[in-house]
Amino acid sequence: MIELSLIGMGMGNPDHITRQGVAALNAADLILVPRKGADKADLADVRSQLCKELLTNPATRMVPFDMPVRDSADPDYQGGVNRWHDAIALLWLAAIKTHLPQGGRLALLVWGDPSLYDSTLRIAARLGQQLPLRVSVVPGITALQALTAAHAMALNEINAPVVITTGRHLRDHGWPPQASTVAVMLDGQCSFQHMSPEGITIWWGAYLGMPQQICISGPLAEVSGQILAQREAARAAHGWIMDTYLLRKSSVSIN
Amino acid sequence: MIELSLIGMGMGNPDHITRQGVAALNAADLILVPRKGADKADLADVRSQLCKELLTNPATRMVPFDMPVRDSADPDYQGGVNRWHDAIALLWLAAIKTHLPQGGRLALLVWGDPSLYDSTLRIAARLGQQLPLRVSVVPGITALQALTAAHAMALNEINAPVVITTGRHLRDHGWPPQASTVAVMLDGQCSFQHMSPEGITIWWGAYLGMPQQICISGPLAEVSGQILAQREAARAAHGWIMDTYLLRKSSVSIN
Ligand SMILES: C[S@@+](CC[C@H](N)C(=O)[O-])C[C@H]1O[C@@H](n2cnc3c(N)ncnc32)[C@H](O)[C@@H]1O
Ligand SMILES: C[S@@+](CC[C@H](N)C(=O)[O-])C[C@H]1O[C@@H](n2cnc3c(N)ncnc32)[C@H](O)[C@@H]1O
Repeated sequence: MIELSLIGMGMGNPDHITRQGVAALNAADLILVPRKGADKADLADVRSQLCKELLTNPATRMVPFDMPVRDSADPDYQGGVNRWHDAIALLWLAAIKTHLPQGGRLALLVWGDPSLYDSTLRIAARLGQQLPLRVSVVPGITALQALTAAHAMALNEINAPVVITTGRHLRDHGWPPQASTVAVMLDGQCSFQHMSPEGITIWWGAYLGMPQQICISGPLAEVSGQILAQREAARAAHGWIMDTYLLRKSSVSIN
Repeated sequence: MIELSLIGMGMGNPDHITRQGVAALNAADLILVPRKGADKADLADVRSQLCKELLTNPATRMVPFDMPVRDSADPDYQGGVNRWHDAIALLWLAAIKTHLPQGGRLALLVWGDPSLYDSTLRIAARLGQQLPLRVSVVPGITALQALTAAHAMALNEINAPVVITTGRHLRDHGWPPQASTVAVMLDGQCSFQHMSPEGITIWWGAYLGMPQQICISGPLAEVSGQILAQREAARAAHGWIMDTYLLRKSSVSIN
């Protein structure tokens, strides 16, 4: 039996992790640490750094594994993602066979919170088809919480709903009906630039929770260009960027 | 100058707080601890317990203040809430004048995360009109993250949007258009029972992250009655309840 603990790690800073997360890390027999491609160099090592800083149990072993590369040229997007998840599950399985042949406690650090736009739970479900598995989740701080904290703002207007969506969905479907607040993640294309900016305020953040954090907010019509320019400059300087933002149409009356 | 730190505390368990939260608590000169009414007896003391467990700085003082009671009979709901927030801000101000007359670092523990259906940031804005104030926010684990962790599930379907809303909004406006996943908070009335249950799955949780945690999930048509009964029994046994849930209509095609 494998007890798999998926530990939300926040934005990579060891101070974002909860006490429960630190305890779960130190309760593990084995921590699997993905090695990523070289293009996100700053991020590649963040999990091993975190473990080095937080591990106090000498019995816990850290084992790296090479993340398979997803074939982004695959015209069958969903099929390609499924095959990629299959491949990751097989690598976990191989590591377990090698390092935990009698079963035991396995831990993985998940960026932000495992519940939000992350596939680790789905990969774990595949693993569960190969061996007896119990999955537990330790929540972590999401990018959206890092965003609202950085701007010292509420996610919602008083008692009002919030839509969390992706850049692609926003581009394909437009402003969600009835919504006054929209939180956008997974947007490599600044999808806000394709909407009519009247009445919309944006709160944008990149590298949230990290030393290089950037925050910009204001009426979309006024700050859109500034965000595009700073985003491009930062991406060029660091070689990668992660960003997320809130949009609010305060004129929409929904209550 | 007052530096106010709003610290997300998760669900009251000292293990839910992040290392950043523990540090912010110990960096404070003064922690204001609300005393609540007697009806939520289990909760009243949770903040002082948390401080007792996490405070190591002997210079940090904890000062209790009596939360004013909101006049729930006030027919002007929004006006009543505003006056209640005004009253809380005045109590903070009085405590600051007494205990931090030269300024300094003030901390408050906020249930869950300060960004989600919480008024502390709005009360802080009122305080900022009375004295020089800098507000910073330390994110905490929300009830929704405790819910998805307890069910070891993702909040979203792959790349799909999620609507976070209140019980009242769901009753008044029905299922949000285009949404496949709806997360419901602030619902004292089990609003799910008023919707047609066909095709809807529910993941429900009460007292999340606490020793008395209860989780029920399944097709809404099948488990709705069970949730109503268990909720009523638990509320009677403990004298209070907090619950939240996810609803998913998997038949809705939105991608
Ligand atoms: C695959 S999702 C994972 C989200 C993660 N599970 C969480 O809880 O935040 C990645 C997206 O999260 C957002 N994101 C993650 N880390 C971020 C950061 N440090 N700053 C800004 N946005 C971030 C970006 O929108 C990015 O496209
Ligand atoms: C005023 S809101 C505050 C939310 C909080 N700021 C957060 O981040 O979770 C209170 C609502 O959160 C949910 N909630 C808070 N704590 C909970 C718990 N331990 N279990 C279940 N639901 C909870 C309930 O829906 C409750 O009505």
